Amino acid sequence: MKTVSSELPAGAKCTRCKGRAVVRLPSHNSRFCPDCYIRFVRTAVGRAMKRFPLPRQASIRVAVSGGKDSLALWDILHDLGYSTRGVHIDLGIEGFSGISRRAVEDFARERNLPWSLHFLKDLTGYSIPEARRLTRRKICSVCGVFKRRLLDRLAVGEGGEVLATGHNLDDEAGRLMGNLIRHRTEYLEKFHPFLPSRHPAMPVKIKPLYRLESVEIRYYCAVKGISPAEEKCPLARGATSHVYKEALQFLEDRMPGAKRDFLFSYLKEKGIPWGGGEALEQCHRCGEPSYGSLCGMCGLLDQLRANREAVEADGS
Amino acid sequence: MKTVSSELPAGAKCTRCKGRAVVRLPSHNSRFCPDCYIRFVRTAVGRAMKRFPLPRQASIRVAVSGGKDSLALWDILHDLGYSTRGVHIDLGIEGFSGISRRAVEDFARERNLPWSLHFLKDLTGYSIPEARRLTRRKICSVCGVFKRRLLDRLAVGEGGEVLATGHNLDDEAGRLMGNLIRHRTEYLEKFHPFLPSRHPAMPVKIKPLYRLESVEIRYYCAVKGISPAEEKCPLARGATSHVYKEALQFLEDRMPGAKRDFLFSYLKEKGIPWGGGEALEQCHRCGEPSYGSLCGMCGLLDQLRANREAVEADGS
Repeated sequence: MKTVSSELPAGAKCTRCKGRAVVRLPSHNSRFCPDCYIRFVRTAVGRAMKRFPLPRQASIRVAVSGGKDSLALWDILHDLGYSTRGVHIDLGIEGFSGISRRAVEDFARERNLPWSLHFLKDLTGYSIPEARRLTRRKICSVCGVFKRRLLDRLAVGEGGEVLATGHNLDDEAGRLMGNLIRHRTEYLEKFHPFLPSRHPAMPVKIKPLYRLESVEIRYYCAVKGISPAEEKCPLARGATSHVYKEALQFLEDRMPGAKRDFLFSYLKEKGIPWGGGEALEQCHRCGEPSYGSLCGMCGLLDQLRANREAVEADGS
Repeated sequence: MKTVSSELPAGAKCTRCKGRAVVRLPSHNSRFCPDCYIRFVRTAVGRAMKRFPLPRQASIRVAVSGGKDSLALWDILHDLGYSTRGVHIDLGIEGFSGISRRAVEDFARERNLPWSLHFLKDLTGYSIPEARRLTRRKICSVCGVFKRRLLDRLAVGEGGEVLATGHNLDDEAGRLMGNLIRHRTEYLEKFHPFLPSRHPAMPVKIKPLYRLESVEIRYYCAVKGISPAEEKCPLARGATSHVYKEALQFLEDRMPGAKRDFLFSYLKEKGIPWGGGEALEQCHRCGEPSYGSLCGMCGLLDQLRANREAVEADGS
């Protein structure tokens, strides 16, 4: 097998078995051969899963975008023996969405894994490009509202109690830093890779990859021969979340392990959130859980509908 | 007066008085002429001082290294009408210490301000270069132990109730980030620009510059014609505190105001620490306040003494 990390000297040996190393992890001060690396990754995810108080034999819905994180997540959970089912939402973005869907299709077919395919347009009446033309809100935030709500709904609708997403250590540490810097106390309260259900229409949400860095997941895909969609969304622009991740990577490059220390020590202190937090209301429109009398998604749909009617009135 | 910030367009006007601007502050979205800038800086320090519950008519000892922060601090406190007295410790570092001392001398003479000069060698038996040869500990940390303890002792010994140091917003935000990332809970408890006295031998400690960025203080020195020692300590090497400051500056460059938001929102939530925290013991050697039966400074002096005796025995 070819070397996966670029900075490995020739003849480097696996820290565990002394075989030929293909991956180097400075933050763990380790090098791994393919087999030991797979074991390392599985152990990290297994450790995360053990910390989540999940019902036994839970059927896990995996939110799969087709990117490296979600495919690796699905692969690892399946290998660890969990009963999984993929859920993919096609966002209707030309080029990008087709490539993403095919990555999921190919991955699932090769492994004979069950999944369900949904189209945002069917679920809401809008594709992401259509929604983008009808609102001034940042499209990444609009897309986030849609995906969060719809994945919850689809997971519960298909009988899934647990929804797993592919957020990794970089995502979580970056989000933590953003919340600390902007002092978003209300988000900090809910900040954890395990979120209990607070409503019958909400699944338990888990982030089993929170102990693995983005680069570690990229290496895993290379080692396991997983081919994720490599395209970046053409509509994503300058999300502030990237800045926090970059600032943390700046630290990580100078102090290997800083990202992990930061996230883990925060989580250790905090403990698992136990379903408390704000009381959820019921959206008077759709009946689903909401932080107000109208939920974020119904509010968004109202806005899109009003703008579409205005555009159509203009055109007629 | 010449322009102080480099990125000011020709003919830029002061945000306050519409005079000719010489300073531009992106994080405040403002430009200032010299007079309005001095006012801006004084207001920031005056606001800090108002938040500190200081005794009326407190006599303030200012720890002056001769660098930009401590000289600006002394200048501003004096201009605001506080009774101040400088305290300078000469560390005995060839070249560097002489330059630093002369910067303090010149500053004090021009303004006719009282100050006292002390030599580390007289106070402890060691200059910093001597201590460096006698310990494997990082010399910046050794120097920190000496300065913290001796400044407390000198301030109280001279009848000062309050010791002011020149830590600025970058210092404090960087330290906060380091403490959060390394999860140093015990330091976070004491983290505040106002620290009440917890022992008769400890002054109240204040950091009146915590609301001003490092660059804002540099501009202030330029505007006021203060000439700090520009030399960097030749013994300081790769302090980790710089990495946190750089990571924050990385964020600040992309999100002006991020440093300030981060620090202020943390302090707002936290409030002023009220003398609580760990109970202080008394060092059985020197009788000064200590976190254990032997204080950090006596422990350090023991080590230096033992190593000096070993070196002398070797040499004889």
